[in-house]
Amino acid sequence: MDVDSDAWRRGAAAVATLTFDVDAETPVLASSGRYARHLTTMSHQAYGPDVGVPRILDLLDRLEVPATFFLPGWVAERRPHLAASIVDRGHEVAHHSYSHRSATEMTPDAQRQDFERGLAVFEEQGIDVVGHRAALWHTTTTTMELLAEHRMAYDSSMMGDDRPYLLQLDGASVVELPVHWSLDDWEQYAFLPEPHVGSIIEAPSKVFDMWRDELDAMTEHGCLFNLCLHPFLSARPGRLAVVRRLVEWARERGDITFERCRDVAARVAEVGGVREVRVGETEIDPETYPD
Amino acid sequence: MDVDSDAWRRGAAAVATLTFDVDAETPVLASSGRYARHLTTMSHQAYGPDVGVPRILDLLDRLEVPATFFLPGWVAERRPHLAASIVDRGHEVAHHSYSHRSATEMTPDAQRQDFERGLAVFEEQGIDVVGHRAALWHTTTTTMELLAEHRMAYDSSMMGDDRPYLLQLDGASVVELPVHWSLDDWEQYAFLPEPHVGSIIEAPSKVFDMWRDELDAMTEHGCLFNLCLHPFLSARPGRLAVVRRLVEWARERGDITFERCRDVAARVAEVGGVREVRVGETEIDPETYPD
Amino acid sequence: MDVDSDAWRRGAAAVATLTFDVDAETPVLASSGRYARHLTTMSHQAYGPDVGVPRILDLLDRLEVPATFFLPGWVAERRPHLAASIVDRGHEVAHHSYSHRSATEMTPDAQRQDFERGLAVFEEQGIDVVGHRAALWHTTTTTMELLAEHRMAYDSSMMGDDRPYLLQLDGASVVELPVHWSLDDWEQYAFLPEPHVGSIIEAPSKVFDMWRDELDAMTEHGCLFNLCLHPFLSARPGRLAVVRRLVEWARERGDITFERCRDVAARVAEVGGVREVRVGETEIDPETYPD
Amino acid sequence: MDVDSDAWRRGAAAVATLTFDVDAETPVLASSGRYARHLTTMSHQAYGPDVGVPRILDLLDRLEVPATFFLPGWVAERRPHLAASIVDRGHEVAHHSYSHRSATEMTPDAQRQDFERGLAVFEEQGIDVVGHRAALWHTTTTTMELLAEHRMAYDSSMMGDDRPYLLQLDGASVVELPVHWSLDDWEQYAFLPEPHVGSIIEAPSKVFDMWRDELDAMTEHGCLFNLCLHPFLSARPGRLAVVRRLVEWARERGDITFERCRDVAARVAEVGGVREVRVGETEIDPETYPD
Repeated sequence: MDVDSDAWRRGAAAVATLTFDVDAETPVLASSGRYARHLTTMSHQAYGPDVGVPRILDLLDRLEVPATFFLPGWVAERRPHLAASIVDRGHEVAHHSYSHRSATEMTPDAQRQDFERGLAVFEEQGIDVVGHRAALWHTTTTTMELLAEHRMAYDSSMMGDDRPYLLQLDGASVVELPVHWSLDDWEQYAFLPEPHVGSIIEAPSKVFDMWRDELDAMTEHGCLFNLCLHPFLSARPGRLAVVRRLVEWARERGDITFERCRDVAARVAEVGGVREVRVGETEIDPETYPD
Repeated sequence: MDVDSDAWRRGAAAVATLTFDVDAETPVLASSGRYARHLTTMSHQAYGPDVGVPRILDLLDRLEVPATFFLPGWVAERRPHLAASIVDRGHEVAHHSYSHRSATEMTPDAQRQDFERGLAVFEEQGIDVVGHRAALWHTTTTTMELLAEHRMAYDSSMMGDDRPYLLQLDGASVVELPVHWSLDDWEQYAFLPEPHVGSIIEAPSKVFDMWRDELDAMTEHGCLFNLCLHPFLSARPGRLAVVRRLVEWARERGDITFERCRDVAARVAEVGGVREVRVGETEIDPETYPD
Repeated sequence: MDVDSDAWRRGAAAVATLTFDVDAETPVLASSGRYARHLTTMSHQAYGPDVGVPRILDLLDRLEVPATFFLPGWVAERRPHLAASIVDRGHEVAHHSYSHRSATEMTPDAQRQDFERGLAVFEEQGIDVVGHRAALWHTTTTTMELLAEHRMAYDSSMMGDDRPYLLQLDGASVVELPVHWSLDDWEQYAFLPEPHVGSIIEAPSKVFDMWRDELDAMTEHGCLFNLCLHPFLSARPGRLAVVRRLVEWARERGDITFERCRDVAARVAEVGGVREVRVGETEIDPETYPD
Repeated sequence: MDVDSDAWRRGAAAVATLTFDVDAETPVLASSGRYARHLTTMSHQAYGPDVGVPRILDLLDRLEVPATFFLPGWVAERRPHLAASIVDRGHEVAHHSYSHRSATEMTPDAQRQDFERGLAVFEEQGIDVVGHRAALWHTTTTTMELLAEHRMAYDSSMMGDDRPYLLQLDGASVVELPVHWSLDDWEQYAFLPEPHVGSIIEAPSKVFDMWRDELDAMTEHGCLFNLCLHPFLSARPGRLAVVRRLVEWARERGDITFERCRDVAARVAEVGGVREVRVGETEIDPETYPD
């Protein structure tokens, strides 16, 4: 094959996508609707869109880096100016389900309804959405059908590589911008005993070291540094400084570019040269591995 | 609006409130009364008021910083000289429920009874109390009603911002001095397998770095550094040194002030300029988010 | 009072007791006898007495520090030369229950039987035992009765202070050499998914920093640095180096002494000047704190 | 005895075996077959053989160190060129069960079937296998019978020492190359909420420090540094750099050798001088330790 497997990076040693999952109250409510009555917990989640997002937008302006914000439809609906306030600053808004419930715990019909209800919110608000990230990164064959059917340009929920790859689906091929637990702020900072969403709070200095070392090593393997941040976590002052320092460090190196997911995906689709992976359920013998 | 959103800080880059939740035996007993028969566990909790508080008071004297001590009524009742010993040294005592049981697991009536029983203890002891912190930081609409009804000057249990804000309640407006998991020593140090209240013990040096970095970054955003400490945890020698070093570091900078919660709240109420937030249950569709 | 509260330290800024809980298979079997059939798990625990203890004894020889080894009777019984091999090197052997089952989960009769069966093993082996540490540090009023009845010189299972104190019991007074979760290697190193006895493995360098900082700060408060180590954990090469470095660091300072528990306890009993604490169940209102 | 207990090291201060457990999807499917429908989770596991192994093989080439890869038969069967691709580069492939189910949760018959089915896969592929590591390091008396019966040269699943030892079985003696939780990347990096296989993500810099300190201390005790790595974890760029740095650090010292497990085991069998341990169920009194 003549295709250049490095072409999607346009000469950069590694490409970085800053992504913000603006989940607000949804992950907590998806655990149980009763948390709507836990006022402190709701305030903890509301901090994300209400205090965090404006602060993040200001930082991105100062740093002059574009970013991608994944919004559940429910969040965009409740805060009707939120999506536009992000797009107006030059960033991308993308689809993150309607309600942030897990695809693996919904029937295919319910999953379809939730997916399409989310898309409808953005359509109604005039927000152009071309990418998708599954709630909790939980995907099923229904997710794949929906990606193909709705002609999403990319998905960002799988973990099969640390470079973009192509999901080969029935009648479509969708760019995958893979994620990973180690490039997510949730595992480092999230603490909430009820619902139990995390039990350890790491120092931002540890997180900076870990992410910088990963980005550094990724330049040797031509990877996508697809960082997943949550405004209710990473917009707190000492943690936001990690994001700033990381961008400054990469800028100083000079061989790392920051882009919106949609721009990376478009280039991958155009220049090719990446792995193609046929996606489907793993076939197993139920005697060896019963449900 | 002409109001100066920085006025509450009186020129400081950030304001710090050292707060000590003197929970003693209550969080353990609130799990189950049977722990009254676990003598080691009781001794672990008793260390807080019996060994920790005197040591903390001595340190605060040496550092010449005022602090705020949140006491469950049950603790003040059992150790009748405790609250006075704190106030006599120039510090504030504030309301922290009677029994340290969770508001979200009590009926509104039981919550009201517990709240008022706690207030009665302080009244009987002649301790002037103007602020409140919910046990476990669990709040409900009943909490809000009680704050308004009992004319509390401030609450310190919510997480909707990292600067003071105003809770807009029916017929009252209460200053909120927000807390956060990352500014609490419990998440860093608490270890108790039964009842399970924590399972990791971080090094004080990590905690110092994290808190100093947060306070440092907060000076860029004009925040309230509302630090929540527990005498049974943070009065142990190596951890108390963290508190000392933090105060010394801030003093050296020169642009951070240390105050009692009541003094910050009074100024916020007076000069205004902060966010006003209408508090209530989040409205949800029970089909999307069932209980 | 004329008593000197520092007398028990004989001029040292802090006193350190290195203690080794040689639990071997007992904590795992106390979870369930079925683990006797899990050969790897049994080998993991056997490492303690079989590989760890000889290595520790060699290190203590080289460092010329005395230590205290707490042995469950079951362990001494199974390895009949173990206790003597420790005493012969100048160290102390003390009582750590017979079976390492939790006192709070046994009837008073079963607890008494277990306690006395443990003592009988040591008597039979001619090992002089004067101190006690409860399995899991779980104590009840029955524990206190047994301490008084069997005239134990000291106990080392409570957490009410970080300096020795006197347990005031019916008809006896027993020296308490208090322990704490933060001075135990279990919380830092123990990892075993089944039975679940720990889920995080810290770096020895973190543990060294934390313990050195604690010991350093303890010199300002005249404390007892009562370090609890487990041979199956702390005899692994990189962790044993922590113990060595800690002793060397303290030696270099010159104001910290290392002693056996029995020697500290004897001096406390002799010179007094420490807190006296009446021990018993905490009285609670069962309506506030139901079982 | 005239035997030299250091002979197996051939003059090295410590011996290191880099081992890679290429578990792929099996540990997740062993939890429940339903995870076959969780596409992201499957992709997370597939990263190991598909992206990780080729990257690791390249690194080992560059470093010129031999390694040992433990493969479940199921994985070798699904990716029929995987085992050969490893052996062709000069490394060893060894037996890691067929399905990665726990031996302690299978009947002896089912365990035997699984063990032999795994061996059959390698035989069919013409891969010479002489060593075994139990799935999850769970071993039973049946495991020991199978090791003896199938004349395995070594096992690597026990924790009774940090130097090789001999398992004395009925009619056979098998070299044990012991493992340990602290020399496994799973405890440091594995994060997966469902099935729950880990909940903390440590920084590679912490892991490097810990492993280097352990290897360093092991040179004083003549140990086997038997490092267990998983390609889906340790082949991520920043973590693979830890493996590289560790080898470079050891090379620079000059007194540590890197070998395949089979080569170490063969030498131990030949030169002897190691501990001999009779393996079997621990005998217990069911009244003291009920199931």
